[in-house]
Amino acid sequence: MSLEDVDTPALLLDLDAFEFNIQLMASFAEKFKINHRPHAKTHKSPVVAQKQIVAGAVGQCCQKVAEAEILVAGGISDVLVSNQIVGRRKLDRLAGLARNANISVCVDDQDNINEINAAAQRFNANIEVLVEIDIGAGRCGVAPGKAAVELAKSIRKNSNLTFGGLQAYQGKAQHIRGFGERKIAIKKAGKLVKETVHLLSEADFECRLVTGAGTGTFQFEADSGIWNELQAGSYCFMDADYGLNLNESGEFIDTFKNSLFIWSTVMSHPTKDRAVIDAGHKAASIDSGLPHVADVKDVTYVSASDEHGSLVLGPDAVDIKIGQKLRLIPGHCDPTVNLHDWYIGIRDGIVESIWSVEARGAAF
Amino acid sequence: MSLEDVDTPALLLDLDAFEFNIQLMASFAEKFKINHRPHAKTHKSPVVAQKQIVAGAVGQCCQKVAEAEILVAGGISDVLVSNQIVGRRKLDRLAGLARNANISVCVDDQDNINEINAAAQRFNANIEVLVEIDIGAGRCGVAPGKAAVELAKSIRKNSNLTFGGLQAYQGKAQHIRGFGERKIAIKKAGKLVKETVHLLSEADFECRLVTGAGTGTFQFEADSGIWNELQAGSYCFMDADYGLNLNESGEFIDTFKNSLFIWSTVMSHPTKDRAVIDAGHKAASIDSGLPHVADVKDVTYVSASDEHGSLVLGPDAVDIKIGQKLRLIPGHCDPTVNLHDWYIGIRDGIVESIWSVEARGAAF
Repeated sequence: MSLEDVDTPALLLDLDAFEFNIQLMASFAEKFKINHRPHAKTHKSPVVAQKQIVAGAVGQCCQKVAEAEILVAGGISDVLVSNQIVGRRKLDRLAGLARNANISVCVDDQDNINEINAAAQRFNANIEVLVEIDIGAGRCGVAPGKAAVELAKSIRKNSNLTFGGLQAYQGKAQHIRGFGERKIAIKKAGKLVKETVHLLSEADFECRLVTGAGTGTFQFEADSGIWNELQAGSYCFMDADYGLNLNESGEFIDTFKNSLFIWSTVMSHPTKDRAVIDAGHKAASIDSGLPHVADVKDVTYVSASDEHGSLVLGPDAVDIKIGQKLRLIPGHCDPTVNLHDWYIGIRDGIVESIWSVEARGAAF
Repeated sequence: MSLEDVDTPALLLDLDAFEFNIQLMASFAEKFKINHRPHAKTHKSPVVAQKQIVAGAVGQCCQKVAEAEILVAGGISDVLVSNQIVGRRKLDRLAGLARNANISVCVDDQDNINEINAAAQRFNANIEVLVEIDIGAGRCGVAPGKAAVELAKSIRKNSNLTFGGLQAYQGKAQHIRGFGERKIAIKKAGKLVKETVHLLSEADFECRLVTGAGTGTFQFEADSGIWNELQAGSYCFMDADYGLNLNESGEFIDTFKNSLFIWSTVMSHPTKDRAVIDAGHKAASIDSGLPHVADVKDVTYVSASDEHGSLVLGPDAVDIKIGQKLRLIPGHCDPTVNLHDWYIGIRDGIVESIWSVEARGAAF
């Protein structure tokens, strides 16, 4: 089937660009002698995970037990749930999974540690536990330093838990546009991580993992000598939002290629300078900005409604026709992928593969 | 199962509030002697559709052929696709469906009319076609007046099509906050509709349907005597965005009750004034604003990331605990429903029903 025959809206994966991105990140990690554990919250697909692992990744991160279940069922043997998991029902599922794969999870609370251990005991499982520290993101995590050491001590006291190290992700730094400002944010974060690793070491805790970093900052974490694992996930797809980050020369970063697109059809063209496509909120998440129209010049996606995207044609636009199909670059890849059931893999204009977004909606 | 035992994130439906809303709108439509054809893009569920029809609704609207297919398969016999459908593959599906139910569709383009007729011919089907006019929303639709009459003439010339009337929805007016301003927007829109109906009548076209209106404005369309069908859909669930519309006295409208909630768990509580819940972009669409925290006072949902919602506890907040579950009112009901697979129906704190969001993701 040719791309033109793919009905819309659909989620397209440019396989050449996708493979380029995976190889590039694998080469980077090899060069810096640092582990790469890509985040599956981006792709929600064991197929994508397998391709990353074949290229050299050590395992996968995810945010939800349901994602971990789907990854393990899909053949991934090493999964870090880079998140807090709360409540007996979810923790029993996590402990069950730990009987079948290497499972790590993050904590930032004393009671939660005990709750995880109780689940691990019920399943006669061992779960590796990382202490999450807040290094500037202002979301989950205890303060760096002593609070982290206290949690590590508590983990050590629990029969079925192993202290695994630190979860140290500076989420807010990923989309700081300026290169220098991003670098400084990670430098500051690194100082906090280093101090915490040092305090842990004094208390006789070795960090098997010091893990974090995203697509916006991974080179800084890799270069710091402090982190030993990168979690960057969006790099394999990219999106319009990451496309706004700047490199050292103040230009838009183009290290990785856009491989993910929303395929849409022009369904209405009411005036010369306006057209409407069939991809709105239910095909593209706009939380980090609207999609960009690819391939054609001076056509701008100006607003979204539930099932419509409104386009404005500028003076340099070649006229577009009802029925014409257009590729969009999503504003934010992760929640956009979560709206779709399938990746339609395209190479040279032909459908080469159809992969399930297996963990779509697996939020619990 | 009690509500407390429902794992998170989940989409809750307060059945008492939901039934109240459906009855209230049915009473309104009866009082105004106007048809109600609720929009299924909101609920994507044949079960909800059936409940609306039992209460008096004449059928359903939807935006996509796939939604129409699911509604018809779920026993709905009268479906208006209130949207342009483009391309042979989709139109063949629509024509096939028209062999099994009363199907209407909207047009705003000459070539599209011919394309619909060709599909109807292939299936020996008859499809009712409404002309969509742009009465201020600035999205799809031809200009009111002569352009609409030209399209009606074209529909009449086609062997397998029936002219059905006008699609006249003022989407932009739905969320104008002030009562007076909303009323004026619909008054202006009504003038355009009336003129078009008159021109059509002079050209010997009777409008079986003059259909439109949403939850923000339906009382004005009903009161105008111009429209004969209301498409309001969000009324059965409501959301935080509709909650900001004002009534005649300048107070927030509370005609309909919030029946739709996102059920979430506190997963981290790093500081006294901050907590994090397990519902972010993948559980709640933020295109029309962030969710609101229900039931507890002075706790505000201040930012969303993919799987996290960050809460700020104000001075009047009672402390919340990790593991505690909270209900959120979604910012925008339609795209939020589309993120979930199930409605968990709750009455008196007990799970009474589980309904599939059958048309979730059915975007093509």
